[in-house]
Amino acid sequence: MSSSSLTHINDRGEVRMVDVSAKDVTSRLAVAEGHVSMAPSTLDLILEDKAQKGDVLAAARIAGIMAAKRTDELIPLCHALALNKVAVEFDAQREEGKLNVQATVKVDGKTGVEMEALTAVSVACLTVYDMCKAVDRDMVISGIRVLEKAGGRSGHYRAGPEAEPR
Amino acid sequence: MSSSSLTHINDRGEVRMVDVSAKDVTSRLAVAEGHVSMAPSTLDLILEDKAQKGDVLAAARIAGIMAAKRTDELIPLCHALALNKVAVEFDAQREEGKLNVQATVKVDGKTGVEMEALTAVSVACLTVYDMCKAVDRDMVISGIRVLEKAGGRSGHYRAGPEAEPR
Amino acid sequence: MSSSSLTHINDRGEVRMVDVSAKDVTSRLAVAEGHVSMAPSTLDLILEDKAQKGDVLAAARIAGIMAAKRTDELIPLCHALALNKVAVEFDAQREEGKLNVQATVKVDGKTGVEMEALTAVSVACLTVYDMCKAVDRDMVISGIRVLEKAGGRSGHYRAGPEAEPR
Amino acid sequence: MSSSSLTHINDRGEVRMVDVSAKDVTSRLAVAEGHVSMAPSTLDLILEDKAQKGDVLAAARIAGIMAAKRTDELIPLCHALALNKVAVEFDAQREEGKLNVQATVKVDGKTGVEMEALTAVSVACLTVYDMCKAVDRDMVISGIRVLEKAGGRSGHYRAGPEAEPR
Amino acid sequence: MSSSSLTHINDRGEVRMVDVSAKDVTSRLAVAEGHVSMAPSTLDLILEDKAQKGDVLAAARIAGIMAAKRTDELIPLCHALALNKVAVEFDAQREEGKLNVQATVKVDGKTGVEMEALTAVSVACLTVYDMCKAVDRDMVISGIRVLEKAGGRSGHYRAGPEAEPR
Amino acid sequence: MSSSSLTHINDRGEVRMVDVSAKDVTSRLAVAEGHVSMAPSTLDLILEDKAQKGDVLAAARIAGIMAAKRTDELIPLCHALALNKVAVEFDAQREEGKLNVQATVKVDGKTGVEMEALTAVSVACLTVYDMCKAVDRDMVISGIRVLEKAGGRSGHYRAGPEAEPR
Repeated sequence: MSSSSLTHINDRGEVRMVDVSAKDVTSRLAVAEGHVSMAPSTLDLILEDKAQKGDVLAAARIAGIMAAKRTDELIPLCHALALNKVAVEFDAQREEGKLNVQATVKVDGKTGVEMEALTAVSVACLTVYDMCKAVDRDMVISGIRVLEKAGGRSGHYRAGPEAEPR
Repeated sequence: MSSSSLTHINDRGEVRMVDVSAKDVTSRLAVAEGHVSMAPSTLDLILEDKAQKGDVLAAARIAGIMAAKRTDELIPLCHALALNKVAVEFDAQREEGKLNVQATVKVDGKTGVEMEALTAVSVACLTVYDMCKAVDRDMVISGIRVLEKAGGRSGHYRAGPEAEPR
Repeated sequence: MSSSSLTHINDRGEVRMVDVSAKDVTSRLAVAEGHVSMAPSTLDLILEDKAQKGDVLAAARIAGIMAAKRTDELIPLCHALALNKVAVEFDAQREEGKLNVQATVKVDGKTGVEMEALTAVSVACLTVYDMCKAVDRDMVISGIRVLEKAGGRSGHYRAGPEAEPR
Repeated sequence: MSSSSLTHINDRGEVRMVDVSAKDVTSRLAVAEGHVSMAPSTLDLILEDKAQKGDVLAAARIAGIMAAKRTDELIPLCHALALNKVAVEFDAQREEGKLNVQATVKVDGKTGVEMEALTAVSVACLTVYDMCKAVDRDMVISGIRVLEKAGGRSGHYRAGPEAEPR
Repeated sequence: MSSSSLTHINDRGEVRMVDVSAKDVTSRLAVAEGHVSMAPSTLDLILEDKAQKGDVLAAARIAGIMAAKRTDELIPLCHALALNKVAVEFDAQREEGKLNVQATVKVDGKTGVEMEALTAVSVACLTVYDMCKAVDRDMVISGIRVLEKAGGRSGHYRAGPEAEPR
Repeated sequence: MSSSSLTHINDRGEVRMVDVSAKDVTSRLAVAEGHVSMAPSTLDLILEDKAQKGDVLAAARIAGIMAAKRTDELIPLCHALALNKVAVEFDAQREEGKLNVQATVKVDGKTGVEMEALTAVSVACLTVYDMCKAVDRDMVISGIRVLEKAGGRSGHYRAGPEAEPR
């Protein structure tokens, strides 16, 4: 906890974009993760497809990358940023029925890019959900959080091991 | 599980938008939920604000509504739909440090609107995250799932009680 | 004054998209107007250009038409609509230094299109402003209002003569 | 009046984006204003709401901020800019039935941000209009102009007192 | 040639969106094609990739589908349409160094969807170009045209064999 | 041919945005061209219009400029760039029934702008197509390629004379 009031709310309780005029342009990185829980048989369908042509994961990867670039259109108080890199990776845990998604974003800018990484993860998960929803109505998207953040005044942040589900 | 193959993948493993030409226009509803886990003190900041002017939740609500209308721009294979209604509601469980988000979407159309409801929930959660991230780096967005779906050929769906965290 | 509470605000003071599920699809029309006040010499530059190739007004017309189609992305609680027609017209009053803008929008839909017409006028005016701002810093955009509205339950509305400036 | 021809029109009368390659990146600021004229009773509805939760003005504020970030998508010849700050403020004059809107935009860039400030004001006004139109059909949006502009080669500009309505 | 004047230009030479209020909603189809010419060795890189995971073509397919849904944002006078289907297919002619792209679009609407099909083809070709430009600077995108159009008053259209290059 | 593998595909065959963190910001230029082939009588309609008010070409020019600014939204792996300049020019060859389109884009950035120039050309051609399609169904868009590219590590590139149609 680094402060006791919300930076996006002014003294009158009104929302505002934080003024970053005085902040330095630095190289920044953020890594976020999340996962889609599904029936193992649903995960098999995705993985079989991957063995063939990978289009489910390709679609989710592309959707996540494209969404990261539009984060400032979705999140009202985010600053527009010209991202240097967006990567979206998947990792399947078949037995647990979990498809893990991890996004890495880099920028030279005045603000961090954790929202861009979280948006990439969220939209990639939603795309997987969309493509599998006809075969599995009980999927759940969970565990969306920041894993690592570097650059900027707040120093290097690295999340602990996944907390107890809460 | 209503089928054994992915509707968005054709026989060659390529992605496709499902052809809905032959489907009827019917009244459809979807309700989705999710939550942001945070420190109780972070939740207090939001709720105090709510007591005053509610701008954190107002911003998240508006972001969720606006994102629902743009779902087809974010999720590659979603059809564009002229939504009849989008509503986003919040419910706080202070002791558990959970801010619950629920979205309801209605349409008269050829396809269901669960992706629109899930997108509204996701972007509302991301907006809450953005507005609180300076005071709480350990927030997690979880439990994003469909609660209810009505209209269309697949009948009425209602999710069971929240499953064990997975 | 047709009612005493705001339709976009629920009982708890929260914003909402009005649920139009029960409304009929009808043919609807809206006409809006506005104007840019500028130095007569600025207006001359636009009109001379018009005599030649009309690109200032062409740019403003196209910007207005394109903006009308994206009204639901700009105005948080507007419903998306597939517009039948958008037209933007200009009329210059040289002596008064006024460039009048009028937009007409038609739809077959469940909601009126006055916001689309007002958005077309606003963005057309802003585009004229942008193209002339290097020669005239004192322009003012005013008088943006609905002239006529037809279709839907609220009946035909026609504005009175331009009121005293207020 | 700083020049005698339109910068966005070339010698052949064709529109163009001004080439800013040779311009320096400097800190720039613009402040714009505008207002919505409405019945005092309409203004009361907004203000009462504000006393409670402020969601009308919150929605308009957020819409204005989000629109500022997308100015280059709306105004054909505007350059894309990564804004440092966007703020939207309201001030009500109950007796006159006027809701004043003021927007402040900052950037480190090669072009001024008056169009971004004017766009924020315009879309905030349109959002207020949208949320009140069911109770007041005679609202008018007026007085949209630049109040102040700083940074860049053209020096500091400050508008005079509001001119006679024109 | 079905008429002697441009439908998008009124009597005063001004652009307009054609008013489709009086047109019927009918089922419509359009098929368009185009191709990217490249060095055979560049095509081999794409095809090898396809043999593995197909991500180049998957990216181009998704980009084309997503662009089709946003045609009305790109082409100023196009009407927004809720598309029933968009499909993008590829066919490689290795010896000629040609990657052919074909898009099929369906809608129930008041206007044809040839612009949507042409936009899907164009953006799919541009995406292939983007992904291969580091290895082949001499690619050319050509032959973008409508192959077939059905539905609506103008009857069924089917293009002749590819004309002499022009 | 400057390399033997695709920069947008990683070792696992997955798409990625190239990481440009280590690249220098330099002044970059790209020029692209393309053309719409049409019946000479169609071209006459455009040119007559040009003689009058130029709105067909004005619309296509504006659409091309606006599309260039949104290239990163259309092409999945393109980086967002704040363009310094976008210009779109037309040149008609009446006897051949060809309307040539040329786009010039400049930026100070880490990546080249050939995709932005190619996108401007493509969308300008599509807009011409849209505005003339009611009078000429047999138009073809061809010859879209990069003419010149400057700035960045890969040196100055200038295309040869138009190759044999391929």
